[in-house]
Amino acid sequence: MRLSRSFGKTLRDAPADAETASHQYLTRAGFVQQVAAGIYSYMPLGWRSLKKISNIIREEMDRAGAQEISMPVVQPRELWEQSGRADTFQPPLASLTDRRDRNMVLAPTHEETTTYMAAANLESYRDLPFNLYQIQTKFRDEARPRAGLLRVREFEMKDAYSFDKDEEGLDVSFQAMADAYHRIFSRAGIDVRMVEADSGPIGGKDSNEFVLLAESGEDTIYVCSDENCSYAANAEKAEFRKPAAEPEDVADLEEVHTPGIKTIEGLAEFLDVPISKTVKAVFYAPETSTGGEIIFVSIRGDLEVNETKLRNVLGGVEPRLATPDEVAAAGLVAGSASAIGLDADDGPRSRVKITSIVDDSVPNSPNLVAGANKTDYHLKSGNYGRDFEGDIVTDIAMAQAGDACPNDCDGHLVEHRGVEVGHIFKLGTGYSESMGATFLDEEGREQHALMGCYGIGVGRLLAATIEANHDKNGMVLPRAIAPYEVYLAGLNTNNEEVVAAASKFYDELQDAGIEVLFDDRDEPPGVKFNDADLIGLPLRVVVSVRGLKNGEIELKRRDADEASMAPLADGVAAVKAALDG
Amino acid sequence: MRLSRSFGKTLRDAPADAETASHQYLTRAGFVQQVAAGIYSYMPLGWRSLKKISNIIREEMDRAGAQEISMPVVQPRELWEQSGRADTFQPPLASLTDRRDRNMVLAPTHEETTTYMAAANLESYRDLPFNLYQIQTKFRDEARPRAGLLRVREFEMKDAYSFDKDEEGLDVSFQAMADAYHRIFSRAGIDVRMVEADSGPIGGKDSNEFVLLAESGEDTIYVCSDENCSYAANAEKAEFRKPAAEPEDVADLEEVHTPGIKTIEGLAEFLDVPISKTVKAVFYAPETSTGGEIIFVSIRGDLEVNETKLRNVLGGVEPRLATPDEVAAAGLVAGSASAIGLDADDGPRSRVKITSIVDDSVPNSPNLVAGANKTDYHLKSGNYGRDFEGDIVTDIAMAQAGDACPNDCDGHLVEHRGVEVGHIFKLGTGYSESMGATFLDEEGREQHALMGCYGIGVGRLLAATIEANHDKNGMVLPRAIAPYEVYLAGLNTNNEEVVAAASKFYDELQDAGIEVLFDDRDEPPGVKFNDADLIGLPLRVVVSVRGLKNGEIELKRRDADEASMAPLADGVAAVKAALDG
Repeated sequence: MRLSRSFGKTLRDAPADAETASHQYLTRAGFVQQVAAGIYSYMPLGWRSLKKISNIIREEMDRAGAQEISMPVVQPRELWEQSGRADTFQPPLASLTDRRDRNMVLAPTHEETTTYMAAANLESYRDLPFNLYQIQTKFRDEARPRAGLLRVREFEMKDAYSFDKDEEGLDVSFQAMADAYHRIFSRAGIDVRMVEADSGPIGGKDSNEFVLLAESGEDTIYVCSDENCSYAANAEKAEFRKPAAEPEDVADLEEVHTPGIKTIEGLAEFLDVPISKTVKAVFYAPETSTGGEIIFVSIRGDLEVNETKLRNVLGGVEPRLATPDEVAAAGLVAGSASAIGLDADDGPRSRVKITSIVDDSVPNSPNLVAGANKTDYHLKSGNYGRDFEGDIVTDIAMAQAGDACPNDCDGHLVEHRGVEVGHIFKLGTGYSESMGATFLDEEGREQHALMGCYGIGVGRLLAATIEANHDKNGMVLPRAIAPYEVYLAGLNTNNEEVVAAASKFYDELQDAGIEVLFDDRDEPPGVKFNDADLIGLPLRVVVSVRGLKNGEIELKRRDADEASMAPLADGVAAVKAALDG
Repeated sequence: MRLSRSFGKTLRDAPADAETASHQYLTRAGFVQQVAAGIYSYMPLGWRSLKKISNIIREEMDRAGAQEISMPVVQPRELWEQSGRADTFQPPLASLTDRRDRNMVLAPTHEETTTYMAAANLESYRDLPFNLYQIQTKFRDEARPRAGLLRVREFEMKDAYSFDKDEEGLDVSFQAMADAYHRIFSRAGIDVRMVEADSGPIGGKDSNEFVLLAESGEDTIYVCSDENCSYAANAEKAEFRKPAAEPEDVADLEEVHTPGIKTIEGLAEFLDVPISKTVKAVFYAPETSTGGEIIFVSIRGDLEVNETKLRNVLGGVEPRLATPDEVAAAGLVAGSASAIGLDADDGPRSRVKITSIVDDSVPNSPNLVAGANKTDYHLKSGNYGRDFEGDIVTDIAMAQAGDACPNDCDGHLVEHRGVEVGHIFKLGTGYSESMGATFLDEEGREQHALMGCYGIGVGRLLAATIEANHDKNGMVLPRAIAPYEVYLAGLNTNNEEVVAAASKFYDELQDAGIEVLFDDRDEPPGVKFNDADLIGLPLRVVVSVRGLKNGEIELKRRDADEASMAPLADGVAAVKAALDG
């Protein structure tokens, strides 16, 4: 493609709200144009990249035996009422009333329609397994779309849905998708880690995220430092081994005066004990509660609450921090609270409904400093079991860098930042039960199909790749997903020899099957070099008066600092070699 | 693909509301599944066909120099207010309010977003011409979606938009698209006629429709019978030469009693004159009028009013038939009205606003029988110019089969039925003016880009193809857009020799690059033959005990009546020959 004919202009400046590198460069390089908050058009260069990513995904999905379909954007709300998600999906479903006065929604994902399709075509165990996928437009009405293509409202997504007759089959389908994802990301030329993830409100058993490592990423993952250990999880899911406390004799509970002490750090300092020898109380309430209900969390002072784990402990109920009014109504003293005395006459439990959740770090730690439920007083030597108990004792703690790996190894957790580019779930039978996707098994009994679902955001993958691969001048695109492979710049366009040589070489490269963006514009060299860096194709090739004097062209890989010269006569071979790296 | 693993089941019965062949067969063959009125999912077989059509379109658009982009489904209503179509687009825009309280619409077409993109990237005449296209999802909230994929609400469409610096450029871009369309339909294996069409409310100068000939089609087109003449137009647009009336002396106006005569046919019979010697009056009003306004149409009795032509004469105002109340309020006598006396004292024009439109057949015809504006009376020898006049005299007549071709040839119009599968328009500067797509011309003056737009409904093309290519047993798909090329059926699946030979031949065909749907199911021959006919792949190949006795396979083209035998040893060559032949 001649750049003079390629639609779209590079921009000197990014939009004022573009904070991430991918947002800045995708806009400046003319890959996308914003139409509304979180809604973009793809221009020719951007769409070529998207198609390349889509093709890689399609080939690997086909290879894994998945069958391509296409489901609609606009759907009857009834389908979502059947699955029970019409009112609970987050972000809330974008809705409209059509001319026939029916309530319609824009689909943010397609479990409902796929299960509806499966239900109509599934009869016998002989029909299973199957895996249906699409690369299709979705809409999620995010309240705060941001960061260009990283957090949009309308987007292209590859979503796949597997159906199996039993758990073993689901395991096989799930693994096939995990393998396909590894191949997809590897072919796209990006460094992605598969980590354990929380299933979230989409439900189901196991789930894994694929995270592209990038400093600017908004996700945190933890990976075991032991290279023989495969443990990796995102922050929401990460577990860790909590070191057992030094054994010591259980002492008597003792009230101490702690004037003005409101924080756990202040308390530890005041009493000169390690923070790990304290237990802190954190007050939550169910997100939808309007009062009268406290989720009372006890966790060791050196740990933080992982609200995702907490939500799962609560059976999916989303927790929010309790308001000061709610805390006061329960008779709890913020800054001096503990689970000790929750059940006292006229204690908090006599006033409001309380669910006491205790992190499993607490029972293992003797003689903890705890709140006395009295302003400016705490208790020394609080002991789980003797002085207080929880309704539920389990792991609700946030992992941190340096924590011991939960696997049986000597490693510790290393923290990385990254961007989620894929997510795979074992859904189980939730949707097949609510939407009637049944089959007759070998014994003629009706069973519900076991489902898995598997997503990749196509535009997000492009943006994430740029987050991980750029410098101060622009994008550094992997060959497999760059819109073209070579940026051919003819300099000195007033020189007929250069124009002729560059045009001829452009034809030769194309004849050799190499995809070339030919900068044939009448622009100064500086503009061409800047645009080449900004657009970030893998290889820049320059034809100039100076080079032609020696019969040479200049080659410079985008990811290298140095350029090199090659004879124009062997130009095609030199370009191929440079592309291959 | 083994049919035992291909997702989807054939159905014995079509849905009760499926009246067209394409709707019935696409559903029964498992190509699509209805999700809501006019909203479908594509299942694997259907989506394979869609992708093949899309690929042909993409290749030909690329070849014509168009550049692929992708624009969003959900758009700010503001964009449509800028173009002036927010409230006038038909069917009305599907609308929603997003979480940010902004009014959004689902795009039924993309003139607005393309022009918005062009405006941001267009600076100079040197940037022109360009042509941007996408293959993308659209939503039109039709009040009465019907006929399966022929009239849907959500659909995949290829839409292209050309931008040029002047009329000559637009002509070139328009012709390039017309040529590309001919190639696309030819490659898809379907017989399509390009006809002149009305531009409709989308605006612009020239427009052509591409119509697939099919008895069941809802569109009517007229084609000149002279094979050296290229005239072809759809019913809304078709013109014809109106024969000049025999010259005769102008006679005096004469009132005659016509008791009980209310119709033009009855009048001609009563007075024993040809219908072409009468003039009839038809009363319209602007669609949005609430009274007090009559569009008074005079047309020769043997002709019918073409309401599309009438709308264009009215400058785009949509006409509707006037109500009896409106007619009475004007003092017009239905059944005995004419334009004679419109301006009389106390005549219709003194009561309401009247626009008199006269078809150009009327001035050429002397001595017409006309209404006397008096119940049971008519006038003989009414003559245009002497007895009445029109505000506008022009062609507003509907063409009919047998009418003389408007071109300078001896042909007459032949009527065909068909389905519109593509439409190309010259839009001119309407959108570039309202949305600011300007450029500086060679003299540095600001100009508005001239636009064209070019659409093909991808799913509609599949459905139309089936309307034109089917029999009582199922679809007869052209090779280029069939989901697979060969339906390979292994009969007698309890016979190991057949199973082995069929499987081996399946592999051989695939190795030869032939796309095969292999019916390996344990079903009786009748079921397999029925499904083969229903799905309609170009060639059916049967491996059976009987054939194998002679070392033979059976080949039957879907579009042929007879099967033939071929040696299995030369099977691949035989299949290729049969597919080609």
